[in-house]
Amino acid sequence: MIRVGIYGYGNLGRGVESAIRQNKDMTLTAVFTRRSPESVKIRTQGVAVCHADDIVSYKDKIDVLILCGGSATDLPVQTPEMAKYFNVIDSFDTHARIPEHFKNVNKSAKESGKVAIISVGWDPGMFSLMRAYGMAVLPDGKDYTFWGKGVSQGHSDAIRRVDGVLDGKQYTIPVERALNAVRSGANPELSVREKHVRECFVVAKEGADKAKIEKEIKEMKNYFADYDTTVHFISKEELDRDHSGIPHGGFVIRTGKTGLNGENKHVIEYSLKLDSNPEFTSSVLVAYARAAVRLSSEGVSGCKTVLDIPPSYLTEASAEELYKTLL
Amino acid sequence: MIRVGIYGYGNLGRGVESAIRQNKDMTLTAVFTRRSPESVKIRTQGVAVCHADDIVSYKDKIDVLILCGGSATDLPVQTPEMAKYFNVIDSFDTHARIPEHFKNVNKSAKESGKVAIISVGWDPGMFSLMRAYGMAVLPDGKDYTFWGKGVSQGHSDAIRRVDGVLDGKQYTIPVERALNAVRSGANPELSVREKHVRECFVVAKEGADKAKIEKEIKEMKNYFADYDTTVHFISKEELDRDHSGIPHGGFVIRTGKTGLNGENKHVIEYSLKLDSNPEFTSSVLVAYARAAVRLSSEGVSGCKTVLDIPPSYLTEASAEELYKTLL
Repeated sequence: MIRVGIYGYGNLGRGVESAIRQNKDMTLTAVFTRRSPESVKIRTQGVAVCHADDIVSYKDKIDVLILCGGSATDLPVQTPEMAKYFNVIDSFDTHARIPEHFKNVNKSAKESGKVAIISVGWDPGMFSLMRAYGMAVLPDGKDYTFWGKGVSQGHSDAIRRVDGVLDGKQYTIPVERALNAVRSGANPELSVREKHVRECFVVAKEGADKAKIEKEIKEMKNYFADYDTTVHFISKEELDRDHSGIPHGGFVIRTGKTGLNGENKHVIEYSLKLDSNPEFTSSVLVAYARAAVRLSSEGVSGCKTVLDIPPSYLTEASAEELYKTLL
Repeated sequence: MIRVGIYGYGNLGRGVESAIRQNKDMTLTAVFTRRSPESVKIRTQGVAVCHADDIVSYKDKIDVLILCGGSATDLPVQTPEMAKYFNVIDSFDTHARIPEHFKNVNKSAKESGKVAIISVGWDPGMFSLMRAYGMAVLPDGKDYTFWGKGVSQGHSDAIRRVDGVLDGKQYTIPVERALNAVRSGANPELSVREKHVRECFVVAKEGADKAKIEKEIKEMKNYFADYDTTVHFISKEELDRDHSGIPHGGFVIRTGKTGLNGENKHVIEYSLKLDSNPEFTSSVLVAYARAAVRLSSEGVSGCKTVLDIPPSYLTEASAEELYKTLL
């Protein structure tokens, strides 16, 4: 049995907790939190909730630690620190800062002899894999990534910061016309505005100026100004009833040509439609946790990414079984 | 530069020849054939065409040999034999016999210290990867593979063997209703007939009994009897004009549930739309040829499959470059 620890018990931590139950070779050993442990109610009976300050005492009781904090401030500190003591997995998703994060984590994991796998999830994660395979098998080609339909937490937060807004949710939606242009193999150059639209559901405070709220949202730099944005005002009841989920998804499409004169076109399309963004991300984290433990048992150390892991390392099945059933 | 040899110069061999040109770190060293070399005209100037009997003399001139023969009789013999002298790649696609083929090739490659990667292409190949990733990240789920729309060589051959048939081509087509049922997450049990239909374009010999031909095709055991089959009689000119391509493709769909009570559904869909089945397969072969050379340079030996290869080994780019651009 692979003994797993969870560090951080928000949406992602809860997702990892339930994903572990779907993997018969894994068991949850402890959940670590920076809150007061008594205040955290987990959903697995008989499992300890501990303060993060005590985590090092679990050094020999955990085979892999899954870090479930945020990319902005938690993971840049926690992942290198925890890699001193544990094999670790994180979902660090600030694309531009991945090389820097890799370097910090690699240094720490090399020194401790542990394995770290960073930026695991679906983007970065499964989508990165698809971009890599696409580039490898169709070198004379181009890839496109679309996100949605799904909830963007960052944009929802931005809406909620607007004066007069009580609550709100934002959906990122890929533009069907752009998707079809890409699928045609035409290699279109697409502006930000042409690829995605943004749809907002907003609960205004009583007496707030809705026209002003709508204008402020639509003109918000870095968030909405570059997009065609729709704003719907709804009641708090409607928001809670119809928009409480955290769905997401998207598309990676690679088109390319083969033949002596590029006479044959090919389209590779990968898509995800996810009811729960954090639960799917958690499922990917757990699969790579298994790979980390296996690599560690083989004497590997240092930082890895999804691009460095053979697919067969993600499953419990033996190579023979996989060859027989999946090839 | 990676020095590549091609063994067998049919559709696949020609595809490999053109794919090599799209990969700047590779060069074609020689093409080997069992025909008389003078009779084989290749499309790359300055490259030797040699008889297969002389191949062993190229032992130190080739970094990886791509075997482009058929799975029925060529590869079961050629791959283990060639793995005695070369790092080799093949596209062995008789699914049921892969474990046996693996065993034979592995023995040979272990003894010679070479690397062999078998069953490379899109199914087995890219589709196998998708089935593996799907199973790993959604363990509480089910996967479905659909093929087409595309030309089945086996079924086209079967048509051409029918008495009174001059020529013919068969398309395998996935049934849209079945695809949508799978995408819904309903986990349908689908019969062979419900998943695919077969469409045949047939050129009858002059004076042949078309009704008899149609009946014979539709009732042919193992090929058509279990499917809804349509037969169109067309002229030889129409066949050559409209049906000379070798398109193919298909879908791998994984649906699954997450959450403590399986309350959230997810759909992963991977699809290929290929103008040329052999050229796409060739492109995949070439990418894995690169991986074989890298593994060999690391001291690895024995037989591998796509499931055993880290995605980053398929591309020329450095790990740092990949982290920066693809993650």
